[in-house]
Amino acid sequence: MTEYLKDMSSPEQKDPEMMREHTSPRAVVSRDTRDRVLTPLANVSRRADLGELATRLAELRDWLASDLSDLEQHLKSIDVQEKREVAWSAANYLLEQRGKRVRPLCVMLAARMGGRPLDAAVRDVAVACELVHTATLLHDDVIDCGTDRRGVPSARMIYGNAASVLGGDHLLVESLRRISRAFPKHVNSLLEVIDGMIRAEALQLDLRRAFTLSREQYLEVVDGKTAGLFCWGLRVGGELGALAPTHVETLAGVGADLGMTFQLVDDVLDLDGDPTTTGKNAFADLREGKLTWPLILAAEHTPALGERIERFVADERAIEDEEAAEIARAVIATGAVEATRAEAAAYAGRALDGLATLPAGTARLSLETVVETALSRSH
Amino acid sequence: MTEYLKDMSSPEQKDPEMMREHTSPRAVVSRDTRDRVLTPLANVSRRADLGELATRLAELRDWLASDLSDLEQHLKSIDVQEKREVAWSAANYLLEQRGKRVRPLCVMLAARMGGRPLDAAVRDVAVACELVHTATLLHDDVIDCGTDRRGVPSARMIYGNAASVLGGDHLLVESLRRISRAFPKHVNSLLEVIDGMIRAEALQLDLRRAFTLSREQYLEVVDGKTAGLFCWGLRVGGELGALAPTHVETLAGVGADLGMTFQLVDDVLDLDGDPTTTGKNAFADLREGKLTWPLILAAEHTPALGERIERFVADERAIEDEEAAEIARAVIATGAVEATRAEAAAYAGRALDGLATLPAGTARLSLETVVETALSRSH
Repeated sequence: MTEYLKDMSSPEQKDPEMMREHTSPRAVVSRDTRDRVLTPLANVSRRADLGELATRLAELRDWLASDLSDLEQHLKSIDVQEKREVAWSAANYLLEQRGKRVRPLCVMLAARMGGRPLDAAVRDVAVACELVHTATLLHDDVIDCGTDRRGVPSARMIYGNAASVLGGDHLLVESLRRISRAFPKHVNSLLEVIDGMIRAEALQLDLRRAFTLSREQYLEVVDGKTAGLFCWGLRVGGELGALAPTHVETLAGVGADLGMTFQLVDDVLDLDGDPTTTGKNAFADLREGKLTWPLILAAEHTPALGERIERFVADERAIEDEEAAEIARAVIATGAVEATRAEAAAYAGRALDGLATLPAGTARLSLETVVETALSRSH
Repeated sequence: MTEYLKDMSSPEQKDPEMMREHTSPRAVVSRDTRDRVLTPLANVSRRADLGELATRLAELRDWLASDLSDLEQHLKSIDVQEKREVAWSAANYLLEQRGKRVRPLCVMLAARMGGRPLDAAVRDVAVACELVHTATLLHDDVIDCGTDRRGVPSARMIYGNAASVLGGDHLLVESLRRISRAFPKHVNSLLEVIDGMIRAEALQLDLRRAFTLSREQYLEVVDGKTAGLFCWGLRVGGELGALAPTHVETLAGVGADLGMTFQLVDDVLDLDGDPTTTGKNAFADLREGKLTWPLILAAEHTPALGERIERFVADERAIEDEEAAEIARAVIATGAVEATRAEAAAYAGRALDGLATLPAGTARLSLETVVETALSRSH
């Protein structure tokens, strides 16, 4: 981690143009919007005492304040808000919770790297990414019987499974309609990404019934479930920014590595995160029989522990919190959590290496900040 | 009904070219395929002693035997069969049950009306219609908590809600991928149709919580849930057949009327159908609080009965079969079921009037047969 953070202050990030951009006047946006959207990210790094990262996040927040406000307003204007049906309430409930909006942020930054500011086209792609992400969260909660999401009850707990299924269907169709209207040529690739997400979720569902601590299956799930959409968003954003084709491909690779970083850190937080910070039930992945990287590493390190985890997951009885906590402690004791953090840092490092080959400037610095935050976040 | 069937033997349907087509040699296909696909339809009319309709269905079956066999083979080849995951089993379970395949049949007949036989393009559209239909059945069963579908347990009863949600998601994406690859210009309209189906289901879900016997809301639900996809399939089929734009529009109208006919007959079968024939639980719609046309008419005829129905649906307790049967008898006694049949016949008549303005031939005769069968079916 120390070496990794040192990388962040490499000279190329301090080119004069970037610094000028940082100090130029910004559009005035409500304090509320800034605070809601990026302050949580900044808090993460403050808590971790990563002062430099916190400063950079604050700068990113200022730089994109107007864009982020526009994004929120646009998400607010999606028709789910006007409708009274319970299915739209379920969709809106989740959209309104304002997650980190990290996927739309990536799209906007990729376009800006090519000098294209937020316009209707960039916004359509950014919004589509957030809608696809939210749609899969709605369906995933039904599939996983999840009770909490982002620190509050999941939509299905309030509005029911039916509303969550329909709300997810609607957001999925809404994302495709946006892309179909604005960029017919990207419809196919977005459909591939969505299908990859569905396939990964189906594989994960099966793994729950026949739990196997397999690296290969883990990577297949994460590739489809998380990495695919980051990859697509950064690729299309880069195309909109008219970057050179090789740069666009590099951005797509950065997206895949960023997705892996996110997922590996999620895995760590399931075992040693603070539920009041993560907004998830403690050991939710473990209890739901989700394959995570630390469990795989722990099983490789201590086969008896692997067998215990497999028995625990296969057990159909109500799952005891205490046993989950015990297993978590045993996994942490193998060093698997630290090793997973190192793995996440390696993916983040690869993403940063990719970014280093792209045009320097505030957009690139901001994407670097997103990668670092993904790695150092505590929720 | 008598007058309606008389219409079917109007002179224009016996033009020499059509008769020649009927007696020309056919591609050899397996007896099995013929029997599985259209025999059930022919049985319907035999049971109803509608000899002429049975004969015409047999002719339609012979004429399209090769196309129907091709369609089945293609549905069989969809990747859900090769995958072992439970979500694909859920999707495949429903696809394999072979409903009436009436939507793909409509697409094929519309294209043939313009002289275009089944080719890859027509098949893509036909298959997409069946996939969208099957996807919504999978999600609807989760939303309605349905236990039976087509006379056997619903997919969610065997594979679980999670597999049905994912299986439906996958078929939806698969249908869009086909259209996106083959006809990018129709992606938008298919997305509109799918969104209309989702909105109708959302409205229906809300009506269940605040049950109101309203004609307006009923028509809104049926328009989105059933009529939209028939309309789209016939329109795109007609375009593929290079029919004149006015004829394409007429076909779209025929689709909307055919959809209404289907739904009204469904409503009737919920109240006076034989569950062993319909394959649905008796009074399933009534017990699930689905708005049906006979209930609306009965409430208008006898307001006290309407209030009783509303109380029955609002009752959260386990719903008694006997009370549902009593309400069904009371509704039938008002003449609402007969009036709904008459309403269905009126929509069917409008569909036939539309067809009468289109190029005569076997395709038109076959579409007329589909309309008649929709009206006279007992399942």
